[in-house]
Amino acid sequence: MQATSVFDPRSFAHWSPEKMGKATLFESERVLVGLNCFEPGQEHRLHAHERMDKVYLVLEGRGALLLSTGEERLEPGKMVVAPADLPHGVRNDSSERLLLLALLCPAPRAK
Amino acid sequence: MQATSVFDPRSFAHWSPEKMGKATLFESERVLVGLNCFEPGQEHRLHAHERMDKVYLVLEGRGALLLSTGEERLEPGKMVVAPADLPHGVRNDSSERLLLLALLCPAPRAK
Repeated sequence: MQATSVFDPRSFAHWSPEKMGKATLFESERVLVGLNCFEPGQEHRLHAHERMDKVYLVLEGRGALLLSTGEERLEPGKMVVAPADLPHGVRNDSSERLLLLALLCPAPRAK
Repeated sequence: MQATSVFDPRSFAHWSPEKMGKATLFESERVLVGLNCFEPGQEHRLHAHERMDKVYLVLEGRGALLLSTGEERLEPGKMVVAPADLPHGVRNDSSERLLLLALLCPAPRAK
């Protein structure tokens, strides 16, 4: 994939029966653009990123956004930003696949 | 809007008859998450960002991605990354509104 060509992010989804699948769509020192791919029941537990903002956008499916204060519903087209140091996680509590666009700014390798 | 709450980016669209509308969804020194809102016929001419990567995702509508080498089609759900210094632009050559999620990493104010 050329970074300067238009693409469909869903075509790069990587699904794994063991754990949440990941795919990288673009990476520089400034940003990591990736996919988080949750089979039903899979979860990315509450975690936080030092000095990195996390941006999620729901490409397909439904699930729960986990925050230290509770949960919120993730639905197609919805998004959320977890600023640096804010604990967040995701659980696919539905019976369908959940596909999220996930950006980390800056990319982890720049830390 | 709280940055740590799930939201629908389309609900923040700002349309202007004069020129492309903009809205800011989240901003830190690391990333600017915004909307670029094109009425039919509106255009963001070819431009480049020094030391900032630009990420576009089409939330609704169709149009043309402008590159110095030619044009590519933008359609719902498609995305593109313009790395720093790469000239890019957008033209809404359709008869419907074109709404793009647009991220700049890092945010312009961090330059």
